[in-house]
Order: sequence, then C-alpha cells, then structure tokens
Amino acid sequence: MRRWNGWGDDTINYHVPERAVRFLADLLGPGAPPRDATAGETLASLPPARPLEHPLVRSDGAERLRHARGQSFPDWVALRSGHIPAFPDGVAYPTTEADVVELLGLAQRTGAQLIPYGGGTSVVGHINPAPGATRPVLTVDMSRMNRLLRLDDASLLATFGAGIAGPDLEAQLRARGYTLGHFPQSFEYSTLGGWIATRSSGQESLGYGRIEDLFAGGRLIAPAGALELPPFPASAAGPDLRHLALGSEGRLGILTEATVRVAALAGRERLAAHALFLPDWKSAQTAARQIMQAGLPLSLMRLSTPVETETTLVLAGHERLIGAIQRLISLRGVRDGKCLLMLGFSGREEVVKAARGAALEIAGQQGGVNVGRTFGSQWYKNRFRTPYLRNALWELGYGVDTLETATTWGNVNPLVEAIENALHQALAPFDERAHVFTHLSHFYPSGCSIYTTYLFRLADGPGETLARWQAMKDAASQAIVELHGTISHQHGVGMDHAAYLPAEKGELGMALLHDVCRRMDPDGIMNPGKLLAG
Amino acid sequence: MRRWNGWGDDTINYHVPERAVRFLADLLGPGAPPRDATAGETLASLPPARPLEHPLVRSDGAERLRHARGQSFPDWVALRSGHIPAFPDGVAYPTTEADVVELLGLAQRTGAQLIPYGGGTSVVGHINPAPGATRPVLTVDMSRMNRLLRLDDASLLATFGAGIAGPDLEAQLRARGYTLGHFPQSFEYSTLGGWIATRSSGQESLGYGRIEDLFAGGRLIAPAGALELPPFPASAAGPDLRHLALGSEGRLGILTEATVRVAALAGRERLAAHALFLPDWKSAQTAARQIMQAGLPLSLMRLSTPVETETTLVLAGHERLIGAIQRLISLRGVRDGKCLLMLGFSGREEVVKAARGAALEIAGQQGGVNVGRTFGSQWYKNRFRTPYLRNALWELGYGVDTLETATTWGNVNPLVEAIENALHQALAPFDERAHVFTHLSHFYPSGCSIYTTYLFRLADGPGETLARWQAMKDAASQAIVELHGTISHQHGVGMDHAAYLPAEKGELGMALLHDVCRRMDPDGIMNPGKLLAG
Repeated sequence: MRRWNGWGDDTINYHVPERAVRFLADLLGPGAPPRDATAGETLASLPPARPLEHPLVRSDGAERLRHARGQSFPDWVALRSGHIPAFPDGVAYPTTEADVVELLGLAQRTGAQLIPYGGGTSVVGHINPAPGATRPVLTVDMSRMNRLLRLDDASLLATFGAGIAGPDLEAQLRARGYTLGHFPQSFEYSTLGGWIATRSSGQESLGYGRIEDLFAGGRLIAPAGALELPPFPASAAGPDLRHLALGSEGRLGILTEATVRVAALAGRERLAAHALFLPDWKSAQTAARQIMQAGLPLSLMRLSTPVETETTLVLAGHERLIGAIQRLISLRGVRDGKCLLMLGFSGREEVVKAARGAALEIAGQQGGVNVGRTFGSQWYKNRFRTPYLRNALWELGYGVDTLETATTWGNVNPLVEAIENALHQALAPFDERAHVFTHLSHFYPSGCSIYTTYLFRLADGPGETLARWQAMKDAASQAIVELHGTISHQHGVGMDHAAYLPAEKGELGMALLHDVCRRMDPDGIMNPGKLLAG
Repeated sequence: MRRWNGWGDDTINYHVPERAVRFLADLLGPGAPPRDATAGETLASLPPARPLEHPLVRSDGAERLRHARGQSFPDWVALRSGHIPAFPDGVAYPTTEADVVELLGLAQRTGAQLIPYGGGTSVVGHINPAPGATRPVLTVDMSRMNRLLRLDDASLLATFGAGIAGPDLEAQLRARGYTLGHFPQSFEYSTLGGWIATRSSGQESLGYGRIEDLFAGGRLIAPAGALELPPFPASAAGPDLRHLALGSEGRLGILTEATVRVAALAGRERLAAHALFLPDWKSAQTAARQIMQAGLPLSLMRLSTPVETETTLVLAGHERLIGAIQRLISLRGVRDGKCLLMLGFSGREEVVKAARGAALEIAGQQGGVNVGRTFGSQWYKNRFRTPYLRNALWELGYGVDTLETATTWGNVNPLVEAIENALHQALAPFDERAHVFTHLSHFYPSGCSIYTTYLFRLADGPGETLARWQAMKDAASQAIVELHGTISHQHGVGMDHAAYLPAEKGELGMALLHDVCRRMDPDGIMNPGKLLAG
C-alpha cells in the first residue's frame, strides 16, 4: 500500500545507520519526532464536500484525503499533522477522452475548479486545492488512462494514455524491446502526463534527453477545445506549440494522450555507472564541465560537493565499502574535500568504450581516481530508494527538502554558495542549524543544474516547523532569483515557485502566459493558482 | 557584388557540363531563357515611395529594389522579369537597440508596416512587402547589428547582434577557437536572427543541433516592449518562451541580440564526409534509419533517391570521378537504382572512429559500398555552390525550386511518392514535363526531412512561368498536408506556406498564435501576411 502521509510503499523502510544518526545529532542536535495524526483522525476532520453530482465523481473521504496533497515539504507537514486546509470536493477517474470532455463540461456547468492529477508526487504544490476556494474543486485522477495505445516500431514512437506511471510505461516498452529512458526520482509513481506538464528531467536525461526531447506530440483537451500536437520529427512551421503544453502545469487543459520517442533497449538494458573521486570542488567541476563539453555520449553524470560526498557515504552506511574506497583514495593521494563523480554509460559497446576512455582521461587530468563500478552499481540499484530516507528522517525528528535550479557554468559557484549560505542563515533566527549539501545532477555544454538538499530539526508543532521551512525556502528562492538562476530545473513552478516566475519571464512574458491560459481556458477553471499566481 | 536578381556573388558562375545540358534537354525539352529586365529598367519602373521621413530611413530606388524580394521562385520571376508588384517605401539600417526602438515608434506614429530583414535569402516570401498595402512599408535591415557582444568561454555561449551573417559569425568564433556549426544552404548570406525567426536547420545539425538547440536566449524588441529570454541551460519554469520567438518570422518584433551555444573547434575543424552507394532506395532508407536509431554521434547524413543520385553525378560533371566510382560500384555488384549516402563525422578522434565503424557496418549490412572520402570531400568543399546552379539553369531556360517537409519513418515513402507524383502531374495541363528528385537530408530517430527538387522549363512570359510553378507548388503542398507532413522542415512558412499552416496547428493552435501576435504587436504593424495569413 502506498503511504498516505509519506513517501512510497509502506512495506519499504530506509534504515538509517547508527553512525548516520550520530552524524546528524552532532550537526543539528538530537531529533524529536512530532506525533503524527492518524488517517482516522484526519478523515474525521474532513469538511463536508460541496456537491459535484455526476456518475464519474466520487466524494468519499478516503479519495478526497488521498488527493489532497502531494510531496512538498508543506504537504508533509499538513499530512503528518492532520492540519489540511483544503480538500478536493470530488475525485474522478476518467477512462476515456469522452470522460475527460464530460468532466470539463461538468466543471463549466457547476463553476467547479478542476485539478489534473498524475501520480501526486509534485514537490511544489501542483495538485493542491487552494485554501479558501469558494467554488467546488474536482480532482481528475488520470491513472486509469494508462494504456499503450499505439507503437510505431519504424519511427520508435509510442503513444500512451497520459496517466500511465513510470514503471507501467517502462514495463510495456521493455516487453517490446524498448525503453523511454526517463527516470526522475519520482519514477515509481509519477506519470507521463505529469512529466510533460512539469518539464521533468530524469537521471539519464543526459543520454535520452529531457521530457521536452522525448515528448513528440499528443492531445490536450482544454475547455476551449482540443489542441492536437502532431509528432513531427522536426518542423519549421512557426512556433512549436508543444512547448506551451510542456510546463503548462494543468493550466491549459488535460493531456489525454502523449506520443513519446523511445529507444531500442538492446545494449541499453543496464547502465554502467562508474564512481570517481576528485580531489576538490574546483577540479571536480572542471572535470565535469570538460567531459560535458567534449560532446561525449554519456548517459548520466552527477557530481557531489565535498559535504554531499561525505553525507552520502555516511548515510549509505556501507561501512566496508566506504572503508575500502577511502583506503583506495588515500593510497592514491587524494586530499580532503574530495568529490564524488558518477559517470554512466549505455548504448553500443564500441561507442561506450570510446566515450568512457575519453571521459576517464579528462577526469584523470583533474586528479580523478576511478574506484570502478561497485559503488556505482550500488547507487544505480538503490536510486529510487533515496526518497524513502524522508520517511526515516522524519521519524527521527528531522525534516529534509531539496531545491534546484540551473545556470551557466560561470555562475555555478556563486549560485551554489549563495543558496547554501541563504539556507544556513535562514535558520539563525530560530536558533537552529541546517545541514546543507549540493550536487550538480544535470549537465549541458552551457551549464548545469544545482540540486541542494537541506536537513533541519522538526519543531514541536507544525506551525513552527513550517515557519522554519518557509524561511529557508524563501531565502534560497530569493538567492536563485538574484543570481539569475531559473526558479526550477526539474520540479516545476506549482504554488511554491509561482511568486518567483515573473523574475525570469518578465512582464511581457507573463502577459503571454496569461493570454495562452485565457485562450485555452476562458473561464479560468483549470488548476488555478499554479504556475501563475492568481 | 551580390547579384540583384539571382543567387550570390556575381563573379561566381556554376558551369553546367555539356552532358548535363543534354540530360536536361532529353528530359524536359530544350530550354529557352526569357529576356531578363535590367536593373536600370526595373529601377525606372519604381513607384514613388510613400513618405517615411526619419534620419534613419533611406528611400532611394536602389535600396528599395534590393529589399523588395527574397529568393523564392516567385521572387526570381518578379526580379528577372522586372514585374515587381510592391516595394518597401523606406529601408533603415539600425546600429543599436535604441535605433530599433526608434523605428518601431516611427512605424506606430506613421501607421507603417515594418518588415525585419536579415540576409534576404528567404525562399518562401518572408521579407516581401504585401502587394496593395495601403500603409507605408518600412524594411529594417539588421545587417549592421552584427557584432560579437559577449563570449562566455566557460559556458560556451556567444552573444551576437542578431543581424550577423553566417560567414562573419563563424569567422568571429573561429578566431577564438569556436564554431556554431550552423550551416544552412543559405549560410553565406543568411543571418543569425533570420535563422532563429525561421527555425533554420543546417547541414551539420545532426551533430550540432538545429537552431532551436543552439539558440539559448536573447532579446526581442516588440511594439509592446522587450521580451527578455534568459540563456538557462534548461528550465522547468513553465512554458519555454524561446519557442515563441523561434519561428516567429518577424511577427512578434525584432530580435536584436541572440545568445548561441557554441562548440570548441578543436577536432571539429573539418568534417570527414564519406560517400557510400546503397543498392536501392529501400535498403538505403533502412541503412539510414538504423544508423540514426543506433544513437551514433554523427555530424551529417544525407541520402539521395536513385534519380537524385544520377542527377547529382551528372550535374557535378566530375566525369573521371564518376567513372571511377561507377566502376568500383559495378565491381562490387551494386545493382542499378543505387542511392548515394553521405555520412559526416567530426569531433574527438576515438569517438568518431567508433561511430564511423558502427555506421559503416550497418550500411554494409544493407549492401552499402563505401567509396571513401574523395567524393565526400568534393561535396563538402562545394556545398555552398549548389545555389549558384539556379542562376546557370535559369540562363539555360530552366526553372528550379525545392520544397521540404518532415515526417515519421513509416510515412516517408508514401510522402515522397505523393510529392513527386503531385509535381509531375501538375505540369500535365501545361503540356510540360518536370524533372523531380529527392533526398532525405535531416535525420531524427523518429523520422527525417524530405527535400525535393523540381526542374521545369521557363515559359516565354513571367505569368505563364509563375502559373507552372504555382500549379506544382500547390499540388505538392496539398500532398504534404494530406499525408500529414509538416508544411516546412527548414524553410519556414512566410507567405507561400501560410495557407497550409492551419492544417497542422489546428483552430485552437492558430488562435494561440494570433493571441501571441496581438500581445506583442497590438496594432499589427509587424510583417503582416507572413506566417499567419491575414
């Protein structure tokens, strides 16, 4: 069963090693977990649903609770404490496009707001009903529109119902010899439609491309009608309207089906992940940048700061592995402040071999030590387990959240520094400390993403916990905007980033986005408050 | 000097070999060139300019004539015959962004229409004043906004004035060790701003990416204000507004500066182009598709149908080279109907070697014979000379035009056939024949572009010549729309394709494009009639 107030399958627990518990207590002080509200208590507190009478709509408490919040830190605080300010009034599971059209009509007739819902994994408030809404709220859960509708073997194009979740999508493709290669951290629950609506990026996007590259076309059903996006391989016929659907965050309508570019699985069944240690942050960044700019066909690259490298090794808890790696590193004379660099390769053997040789050579020139594939394989095997750490840390009394941006190479260091400093300083008024660490996880010739994790102690009450988080989130978002990073590289805008969007889109850009929403959704029923504040 | 009524530098002539002249006469009948109007005659026929008084605006006949038409077939008929239905009333050469703002203000004050002008190489009527306009027409020639403004070495980002032409841009970059790698056929005259506004694709876009991939950001000055597009490496912060500027065809404003992603030149100074011959069209397409779908790092691929292969060899006129190649082919048992496949590689030597080995192996499995780099080098050296053939053919009494689309792999053959048939049949009512041939020039895992060339005899008078062309163009465009190709893969929409755009954008899509134009240009002064009919 999926956890109702945390991450993932409730039979899976992340064991935090004793050494890691001590490590956190030393850094942040001992944790004291707050008492969680039970599902029963929370259900009992549900306000009555405003009427949304329709055979497709369910209004029972369990459905309403399950669709009330996503996976942002404020979502967790709400779910764990049982203080949830707003619920959908109804939840519908369309199975056909006609159902979707029907539900849009229902919303228009009844004045309801409509929230498209994929896997509920948003970390920035994409699927939350806005508190204080005067109109009924209908959540449209797309999970039953999850079939492989067409497969064009010659063109490597697969068309799915947009509600299909990552594992189902990959299973359908793998059975036929293909893969999409899109593996965001939320892969096990998030959906194709959600990836498109939020401009998702996956762990192997370096090899397969971001969702922008994979989304070839599809159909968006809007209150104003259907927007058909044909799957041309490329086109010079005016502005590319796919790029309005990508990142539209449910404001324009509901994506019912999506055609994606898949790849033959042969030779790509498994990614070969190498772990390297670089002597310091500067040389590590140089290596990563040079590898990226050499135009090598890599599948994955990920570079941790010294603090993240240390934290990763401690939290992984593979004492023997860590010991062996550390001895190897010290033998080869790598100094303190070392940085973990993961390199992943997949594809045709001879090309992989050439690319790996070239990448390792570049890393070697920066003092990189290749510790081989054992650690990389471990990481790869466990890559979808990391979010379970959130549950475990919460239960130890620690909150954890991540935030991310992207910027050009020359701006990476100042931005990492500004974000980390902002997070540290934001807790000073609370007399608390934060543990903050960063990796660069998506690389481009012109720059990279910056992915920062911050841990801090939970307070006694949800209000105080939320205040700590809000102070950190605001400070970091402000730092991102001030240093001209984008407010999101992969999580999207949702509610939590909406206030910061005008800084990068500009006045005219915001007006364009509002125009597009108005054309597709003249009555403003689609997912109000997300992407565009107000 | 640049030819005023044809392609390119007037000291460069394309010599059509005697054998090729006979080849065309056999196919189409002997050509009889019409008499061209002289520049003097044409200048004498210019209507008076409607007043556009401003220190930046020039209204002399030579400027007005030089900016009246581009390089489409109707443009040629107009220029060669001297029957030009409309001219700009003034031409301005802004040198600063303040000049651009000033000119937009002038247009707004005077009710003038404003046409942004890059290199004047459009083949679909992007820069033509609409005949019968009641408002004065001001052409804004961007060629003096052509400086390298910033170079970010770490991020491989270069910011140019958008009016810079291809050779200047590459020269500036090469002097600093970089290349953009964008080489459309029009490279010698077309400009960065024009590439962006028309979603251009270059001969090496397989390696470097289309202009969509290279254009990182910039500034678009619109009547409604400035749209700033920051050069993030990637972003999930809502819809990507760069994709509204890309393909905007001068409807939204004037791009004053553009930041592009460049690559280190080292190892990419020269492309190694291999020529192969495949036994027939089916096996050739299979080879090209498999090479593309293997995810190999290629720089260029280009596959000619049997008819284009034969025509290329005849027109190239390298009798000895052709003889040698043909002997080699027949020795290796390649049957008639052979297809020329060009493969280009550049980049790190070890990766190139692996990719080349893999590509040649795949081609070999389809019966491909590698004839080495001699023919490829010849083609590469002369690749910007092909447009000069238009001049030579016109002077022999033949018209030539090209059209292009893109589609998914499964649809390539039906679409090639439909386009070629449509072109052949369209001339039957004129009792004329067409020579039609095709190559696939841009490849994607999901499909490719189709690039068709058609030759036909010029008539005595421009009206009849234009009627022949129009019949062919309409028939082919109709075939493209009916078989769900895009109306353009690289030339853009302009005037000539505007009627076909709604077929692929849909009603709602067209409404969105109109909304975007209205927001950026509320009074409708920007390049009316282009992209969106009306």
